Amino acid sequence: MTSNKQLQDLLEKVASGDVDPADARERLIEAFRARPFEDLGFARVDHHRSVRQGFPEVVLGLGKTSAQIAAIAAEIVARGSTLLVTRASADAYEAVKAVVPGATYHADAAVITFRQQDVTKGKGTIVIAAAGTSDIPVAEEAARTAELMGNDICRLYDVGVAGLHRLLGERARLSAARAIIVVAGMEGALPSVVAGLVGVPVIAVPTSIGYGASFGGLAALLGMLNSCATGVSVVNIDNGFGAAAIASLINHL
Amino acid sequence: MTSNKQLQDLLEKVASGDVDPADARERLIEAFRARPFEDLGFARVDHHRSVRQGFPEVVLGLGKTSAQIAAIAAEIVARGSTLLVTRASADAYEAVKAVVPGATYHADAAVITFRQQDVTKGKGTIVIAAAGTSDIPVAEEAARTAELMGNDICRLYDVGVAGLHRLLGERARLSAARAIIVVAGMEGALPSVVAGLVGVPVIAVPTSIGYGASFGGLAALLGMLNSCATGVSVVNIDNGFGAAAIASLINHL
Amino acid sequence: MTSNKQLQDLLEKVASGDVDPADARERLIEAFRARPFEDLGFARVDHHRSVRQGFPEVVLGLGKTSAQIAAIAAEIVARGSTLLVTRASADAYEAVKAVVPGATYHADAAVITFRQQDVTKGKGTIVIAAAGTSDIPVAEEAARTAELMGNDICRLYDVGVAGLHRLLGERARLSAARAIIVVAGMEGALPSVVAGLVGVPVIAVPTSIGYGASFGGLAALLGMLNSCATGVSVVNIDNGFGAAAIASLINHL
Amino acid sequence: MTSNKQLQDLLEKVASGDVDPADARERLIEAFRARPFEDLGFARVDHHRSVRQGFPEVVLGLGKTSAQIAAIAAEIVARGSTLLVTRASADAYEAVKAVVPGATYHADAAVITFRQQDVTKGKGTIVIAAAGTSDIPVAEEAARTAELMGNDICRLYDVGVAGLHRLLGERARLSAARAIIVVAGMEGALPSVVAGLVGVPVIAVPTSIGYGASFGGLAALLGMLNSCATGVSVVNIDNGFGAAAIASLINHL
Amino acid sequence: MTSNKQLQDLLEKVASGDVDPADARERLIEAFRARPFEDLGFARVDHHRSVRQGFPEVVLGLGKTSAQIAAIAAEIVARGSTLLVTRASADAYEAVKAVVPGATYHADAAVITFRQQDVTKGKGTIVIAAAGTSDIPVAEEAARTAELMGNDICRLYDVGVAGLHRLLGERARLSAARAIIVVAGMEGALPSVVAGLVGVPVIAVPTSIGYGASFGGLAALLGMLNSCATGVSVVNIDNGFGAAAIASLINHL
Amino acid sequence: MTSNKQLQDLLEKVASGDVDPADARERLIEAFRARPFEDLGFARVDHHRSVRQGFPEVVLGLGKTSAQIAAIAAEIVARGSTLLVTRASADAYEAVKAVVPGATYHADAAVITFRQQDVTKGKGTIVIAAAGTSDIPVAEEAARTAELMGNDICRLYDVGVAGLHRLLGERARLSAARAIIVVAGMEGALPSVVAGLVGVPVIAVPTSIGYGASFGGLAALLGMLNSCATGVSVVNIDNGFGAAAIASLINHL
Amino acid sequence: MTSNKQLQDLLEKVASGDVDPADARERLIEAFRARPFEDLGFARVDHHRSVRQGFPEVVLGLGKTSAQIAAIAAEIVARGSTLLVTRASADAYEAVKAVVPGATYHADAAVITFRQQDVTKGKGTIVIAAAGTSDIPVAEEAARTAELMGNDICRLYDVGVAGLHRLLGERARLSAARAIIVVAGMEGALPSVVAGLVGVPVIAVPTSIGYGASFGGLAALLGMLNSCATGVSVVNIDNGFGAAAIASLINHL
Amino acid sequence: MTSNKQLQDLLEKVASGDVDPADARERLIEAFRARPFEDLGFARVDHHRSVRQGFPEVVLGLGKTSAQIAAIAAEIVARGSTLLVTRASADAYEAVKAVVPGATYHADAAVITFRQQDVTKGKGTIVIAAAGTSDIPVAEEAARTAELMGNDICRLYDVGVAGLHRLLGERARLSAARAIIVVAGMEGALPSVVAGLVGVPVIAVPTSIGYGASFGGLAALLGMLNSCATGVSVVNIDNGFGAAAIASLINHL
Repeated sequence: MTSNKQLQDLLEKVASGDVDPADARERLIEAFRARPFEDLGFARVDHHRSVRQGFPEVVLGLGKTSAQIAAIAAEIVARGSTLLVTRASADAYEAVKAVVPGATYHADAAVITFRQQDVTKGKGTIVIAAAGTSDIPVAEEAARTAELMGNDICRLYDVGVAGLHRLLGERARLSAARAIIVVAGMEGALPSVVAGLVGVPVIAVPTSIGYGASFGGLAALLGMLNSCATGVSVVNIDNGFGAAAIASLINHL
Repeated sequence: MTSNKQLQDLLEKVASGDVDPADARERLIEAFRARPFEDLGFARVDHHRSVRQGFPEVVLGLGKTSAQIAAIAAEIVARGSTLLVTRASADAYEAVKAVVPGATYHADAAVITFRQQDVTKGKGTIVIAAAGTSDIPVAEEAARTAELMGNDICRLYDVGVAGLHRLLGERARLSAARAIIVVAGMEGALPSVVAGLVGVPVIAVPTSIGYGASFGGLAALLGMLNSCATGVSVVNIDNGFGAAAIASLINHL
Repeated sequence: MTSNKQLQDLLEKVASGDVDPADARERLIEAFRARPFEDLGFARVDHHRSVRQGFPEVVLGLGKTSAQIAAIAAEIVARGSTLLVTRASADAYEAVKAVVPGATYHADAAVITFRQQDVTKGKGTIVIAAAGTSDIPVAEEAARTAELMGNDICRLYDVGVAGLHRLLGERARLSAARAIIVVAGMEGALPSVVAGLVGVPVIAVPTSIGYGASFGGLAALLGMLNSCATGVSVVNIDNGFGAAAIASLINHL
Repeated sequence: MTSNKQLQDLLEKVASGDVDPADARERLIEAFRARPFEDLGFARVDHHRSVRQGFPEVVLGLGKTSAQIAAIAAEIVARGSTLLVTRASADAYEAVKAVVPGATYHADAAVITFRQQDVTKGKGTIVIAAAGTSDIPVAEEAARTAELMGNDICRLYDVGVAGLHRLLGERARLSAARAIIVVAGMEGALPSVVAGLVGVPVIAVPTSIGYGASFGGLAALLGMLNSCATGVSVVNIDNGFGAAAIASLINHL
Repeated sequence: MTSNKQLQDLLEKVASGDVDPADARERLIEAFRARPFEDLGFARVDHHRSVRQGFPEVVLGLGKTSAQIAAIAAEIVARGSTLLVTRASADAYEAVKAVVPGATYHADAAVITFRQQDVTKGKGTIVIAAAGTSDIPVAEEAARTAELMGNDICRLYDVGVAGLHRLLGERARLSAARAIIVVAGMEGALPSVVAGLVGVPVIAVPTSIGYGASFGGLAALLGMLNSCATGVSVVNIDNGFGAAAIASLINHL
Repeated sequence: MTSNKQLQDLLEKVASGDVDPADARERLIEAFRARPFEDLGFARVDHHRSVRQGFPEVVLGLGKTSAQIAAIAAEIVARGSTLLVTRASADAYEAVKAVVPGATYHADAAVITFRQQDVTKGKGTIVIAAAGTSDIPVAEEAARTAELMGNDICRLYDVGVAGLHRLLGERARLSAARAIIVVAGMEGALPSVVAGLVGVPVIAVPTSIGYGASFGGLAALLGMLNSCATGVSVVNIDNGFGAAAIASLINHL
Repeated sequence: MTSNKQLQDLLEKVASGDVDPADARERLIEAFRARPFEDLGFARVDHHRSVRQGFPEVVLGLGKTSAQIAAIAAEIVARGSTLLVTRASADAYEAVKAVVPGATYHADAAVITFRQQDVTKGKGTIVIAAAGTSDIPVAEEAARTAELMGNDICRLYDVGVAGLHRLLGERARLSAARAIIVVAGMEGALPSVVAGLVGVPVIAVPTSIGYGASFGGLAALLGMLNSCATGVSVVNIDNGFGAAAIASLINHL
Repeated sequence: MTSNKQLQDLLEKVASGDVDPADARERLIEAFRARPFEDLGFARVDHHRSVRQGFPEVVLGLGKTSAQIAAIAAEIVARGSTLLVTRASADAYEAVKAVVPGATYHADAAVITFRQQDVTKGKGTIVIAAAGTSDIPVAEEAARTAELMGNDICRLYDVGVAGLHRLLGERARLSAARAIIVVAGMEGALPSVVAGLVGVPVIAVPTSIGYGASFGGLAALLGMLNSCATGVSVVNIDNGFGAAAIASLINHL
């Protein structure tokens, strides 16, 4: 019992008479007795994250060794939780596959996933718009994350503001979304234009794409923070995962 | 007819037979014939904003003269729209009051408001948490904005991370919110801690409160962008209005 | 003889027989004998600037005392040159008016002008677009400069990207321009959108309008430098004068 | 019919009677019926760019895979448009050559080109001045771009301000240009000196050449933005392409 | 006699009668006659450091060749001093082992150590807390340093603020420490929370772990400098050694 | 009972028989029943701070109104706690004096103090060294804070590195300290030199004194963070209070 | 005897027989017995500075109260030393004049001076070149300092690179100098051009003159540090005094 | 005749009667007729540099291909000038050696040198002090440059401020110098301390040695620019060559 969904399932079964209240009580006590996290020495895997926040702990691959990633992944999967590793190298995938044979690697997004039955479905669609072809890896990290978290998604790629007609033709899809993730490098102007067109929460992801005075995505980041349009909030440079997690929270409200 | 609400009211009256379809058609044609914005020379007031985005155009007082603010305010109110002026000086209020006598000035938030019947009600509560006493003006800008946009709000002030027990005691209110605005200066750590406690979208507002290496809020901004917790997105430094607008969009979904 | 126009006038008169070649020769020798600049101790007024660059030396008021400005202004006007002082305070204007009684002060643009017969006319129109009402002072510095330099201008104010329809309605005027000056603060996205719509050189002027992570116009500056659209070049923050001078050079080609 | 030139050719043939008005009408309808862009999934190739802006869409190689570049290149060439890929690796060239056999690789400029009959000729000469030997790759990107866009060009390399006589000897060529591109790293002083000598629009390109407090070209960029000379506008660090595109726009006016 | 401990041992033996005062005097004169440092040409090894500061000179491996490191290491060990080389590559270790066969390499911390009898024992325990798994290398540099300097240490890893229960469960160990080293990347919020829980000096070490707007640890650094909690001081990014040295000074008071 | 000292006093009286265990029990229960903080609406005054951290909550005057400061001060004093307000204006002092008549204002340090019997005495001396005369206000903030927290202090002012003999003459006092606070602006070199002379923890305080490339203390801050000497940790620019609080924690170990 | 000059005078008198060796010995002993500095509590006035460095201690007015400045000035003058106070307000001058009646205030340079007989004469001329009229205050700080330190100076003002002929006409004076101080704001290009013309050490002083991306002189500073010309070293922004002190050291070699 | 020395030799021979005035006249005319630079297409080699500035043009290897470096080197040597290539790779050396067989490579300094008879001797000694072992490569670039330019040099390495006794013991050598180059990374405090000890011009070279908040040498650079000591000027990060060139100019006065 490490997710909201499992908890809800249990209570529904009690309500429907499929589970005896005494049994349910036993299972609940057992669940709370379990340590809320498992200490692997180098990591404390948080098993109550899903109850608290609606999705199990996600592993940020950056700065961890393949062995560490695999050990954490094994622990998460063993508890019945869906697995998501971001910023994962092909090497890390090999290590994970050895302990979680069913895991999938999405090379374009650099994420490892393994789906289990603990994730609830979101209500509407999340649009993921990318300004240019070079922004696609970050957009894909967002797309894979949002999908795994139970959301329907819609990709709109290469709709940057230098050719507005490419964007204006997609107004219907944008308006229909419950949340829009806008991924853009360079001057990062796309979120402002999108938020000016529709009344949907826009989560802007600056990318490190660009050169010179882009300063690794700083230009896009500052542009998005200073958006003249209403409804834009911003996550860290290249943080496709973070944007998707927020969009998913909104889509599950 | 300059808002979603007016449009919906009309259609409902047609459905209930209170308004004749032919009449409704006339009114709709007239509305679409009207210019979508009024050109005052120095400003083009956007009268379709509310239809497009759910709330009429908001006036950012910063960098405008009191006379300009008053002229725009008069134009907005004349169309039957609710008025919100942010970053408004007492002087600007005097000018606005002369043309919109019923306008109110919230000095603690530096905003001018005038409420009309064009705003729909949000679904749940928005929590506005502020780390320290000095962050209150920004929090109040968010609170006044969110209220005017039709949301129930709950203020939690002075709950910074240096005294965790002040925050941990408010867990119930935090979990019950549909969106949480977290306002913090200095190191900007509060959004991470809040987002770690609950599964609600957190909109983080860095403030320029601090000194030295705070660099006018840069430290808090960077801290929030680099949050290790899932579910945090960020708006510009001191942008209480922007955070409230996003929270309101989420709360109206 | 301190301008291209005077030189051209002389040569045309020689061609038409209105001036005798010997006379013309005398006048030319005299002109070249004159020192190319006048040393006032604290300033060396450049009297060949107009011959070299098509417009007499312009006085940047910033950092000069009113007395210094007035002395330079008197020297420029005495040579028959058109006078332009930028970043001029009302106080500086008083000092200038005492020595150049016909000088005009444009308070909205903070410039002092005095027109003489030494400026040639440009070929087409320069459009000056401003994203928001707060950007108008910088736009006006550009407009006054461009006019004084002999150009027809067209102002399009408050056409920021948060309400695209305000801009899209002006496509015809934008396409008809020989150069477009785009003035914008905050995220500085307007030049990218404009340059994507038309094939005209766009000179982007970031303004210091904004707050927080605008960092005094840095966000807009970086945004413009990283424009994804072709045809955008950038001048210093708030440098309306500089943009107008370039647009005028282009319009006089 | 994807360029201004093709459109003009058609209309001239109608005027001269070489094409029947009815035929022309058919062709125009067909052209407008075509989608203005081709959606390749990862990219939307903009086929009206040339009509709108005078030159077909240019491919920025940075951040794209060789396969993506080749696919976009094939699409552009198939429409009869001239091809320009910037920041192209030798690897990308191999991929492009496979689908566009006639394409050329300019290794010194890192650009791939393939010329077709859709580009109109500019009016005068564009001078490309480089301060030092190390700035040549960026200058060559500008030179190759400007040539492909139909301009006569003149290269002046290694004319930095530490040896003024090298520059002063080229005054005649500088004055004769319709636009001057000045490429410089380190302190970026060359544009100021050039713009002080002549009355021609100067497009300044800071390069990332330098070390230490050059901060990847930031010093040169700031220097150029703060130029004390009139007539200097600036593009992004190392953006030779962007400078050439602007110079070409000016040269085609 | 190159350490405080040796000096104290000698004086205690004089006090206890084990060493004759005349002998002690001879040895002291000899010690002071020795040059306080050994000049190796490229380095001046400081042999009085231990007397002055309680621990012999530590070798920062960064920027030194393996040969230089080995030569300095040999000189230090020859004087009877404990050896600590930080930021040491495996290559440097090979060179050191050739001249100091008993030296140990701690790959996780990138330090080389060789323990001798010249270090006094600290009084209490130093806690080393790390926010995430990726911060462990820096934490280990601190841990190895603190141990070598004679301190008992306690490691608490992966106790970041996104899962507060992991930290709150360790309150007893934190309160019992004489100094706490807190290692954190990203937003660097952990030191504020720890310092708010206990009344022990906290030495905060920002790490370069993170991406995007982490700017190589700058975000964490600024966060820690702006801590709203009392009792936090900060060392350079990734400077685990520096933090341990300070904690050890405090623990030896 | 809001301080460690009061708790210790009570337990000692129980031990000595001066207080009856039953009475003590009553008083303890009452103390724990009291809310750990008092919610004033705009501030939650933390009354357990002293128990947790050894000194009552300190009021940072910056960004608070005089009325807010006075209300918080009254609340703190009413609980029997020592009062310290930093960054306090003369105006704030007037407001505080009205509710805490015995409060003192130290204008040179901009702090308000009111001493009560709840602070324990530190063990040794804290040296406060200031590089230049202009650094004295920050040094005084540290000095007043350290004194109020129960420490003996020793001031060494104007001992900057440009005249080393002024510092070298004070070596004895430096060595005798249990902690040294070093306050310096400009290049911030003094902490490195001091830490090289002695084996005492050095807390470095950069000041905003300087001009130009001092960037408001950034130069000194970076200098101190990069100290080549062992034993230096750093607090925020101008944070004399923070340095004193840490030194006091060390001096109370 | 607090200066090199006094020491030299004495020794010359001994050599010439004007002073008896025994007398000289007495005076020397007395001089060395005197404390090398006077401790005023808030300042330690360094009376051996002149012997060590050739000019008495200079008072930086910035951040000191008028009373502190006056007290230090009195102490310096009483020892027979020449007085120089930089960054002095008119208010500070009033305080100094009260204790040093003969002191002079140079308002254009914001320095207070009082000349005594302890300064030796330099060998050649120091040229002080300023790019623009607005740079004159900093140039004057340099000029007054250099004069007081015993140097012949030559001012060349308003010789910026936008009008090269103004500079090229002064080549003879530049070549004749023993050191050249170049003061420039904006892009700071003048030192590179000057150093390219002559083989004389150039000390570059960036000024905070400029706006926008000048960032308070940062652009000029970076430009000067990255100078492509040989022979340029740089001092802090607006540090006219520092440049003059170095030029004077060179001129006294 | 491409150097001051050759010019001086000729004139002395005329004076001594060794060369006939008519011959000398011929040679001088020929020299002035020669182009002052040789245009290699990618570089214009400046052959009057030595006459103008006392040392022939130096080749900065950074950003040039080995072939370009070799071609320039050949041109310089062919004119009888001494060759100095800085930032030269081993690869570049191979290319140079093929055309200048006698050239030497100093790997520790990354410079290529070839000495000819055109350099005059300096008057005194230049001290080159380096704070740490890691700063030696930059110090060696300075040392090799200064030697080649005809100066006696004295190396003082590893004399950083963390162990002052290592520096204080070298006071005599420091005082005897005509110029001191101080090379330091980290906090860059050494120049301040050196300049406080002696009255000799100090040229400070920040190095990129350090980590974390060193920001590639920025911390050291800012520290040096903000030096509280008189007599310090600064060159670019790692610019050992530039410092040596200035010191040599001073030493040749």
